[in-house]
Amino acid sequence: MAVVTLFMSDRDKSKTFTDKKEADNYDKMLELAESVSIWMEKEIEGLNESQIESIGLLLAKNKDNLLKALKGKPELLLEKSDSEDSENVTPISASA
Amino acid sequence: MAVVTLFMSDRDKSKTFTDKKEADNYDKMLELAESVSIWMEKEIEGLNESQIESIGLLLAKNKDNLLKALKGKPELLLEKSDSEDSENVTPISASA
Repeated sequence: MAVVTLFMSDRDKSKTFTDKKEADNYDKMLELAESVSIWMEKEIEGLNESQIESIGLLLAKNKDNLLKALKGKPELLLEKSDSEDSENVTPISASA
Repeated sequence: MAVVTLFMSDRDKSKTFTDKKEADNYDKMLELAESVSIWMEKEIEGLNESQIESIGLLLAKNKDNLLKALKGKPELLLEKSDSEDSENVTPISASA
C-alpha cells in the first residue's frame, strides 16, 4: 500500500487527478464554462438550465478550436465536433 | 447630385456601407455568426431558430471580448454586455 496525492477542482468534486497540472486545466475549463453559461443566461432568452450548462461546457471544451475560429477561421467550427475531453477517458470496466 | 459608391455584404442585403473595410468587417462578423449558429444547432438540443441565431450573433459581435475570455479572463464575459455593432448605426430617418 502507498499513499497517493490527488488533486481536485472545487468546482467538480466528482473528479480527481494525480497530476496537478491536469487538475488546474480542468478547473480553468470549468471556470470558463461557468462564465459562458452566466453570459448566455443573461443574453439569450428562454434557454433552460441544461442548455445553458451545455453551451458553457461546449465552448470551454472546444476553446482552442473556437479561438482559431474567432481569429478568422469560422469554418473550423463546422468541421470538428469533438467533445475533446472525453476521448482520453477509459471507463473503469473496460480495463478489467 | 453625385454618385456614391456603396458596399454591401451578400449575407445581409439590408445594410450598405460607404466604407469598404466596414462592409468587409460586417461580412466577416456575419460569417462567424452563421458558423457559430450551425455549430450550436448541431451540438445543443432543443434550441429554437431565434435562439440559434441570437447565440451566433452574440458571440460574433463580442468576438474581441470573447477572445480575451478564452485566453484566461473569463470574468470579462460577466462585466460587459455590449451589442457592439449597433452603437454606430444611425437610422436613415434620423439624418433627415
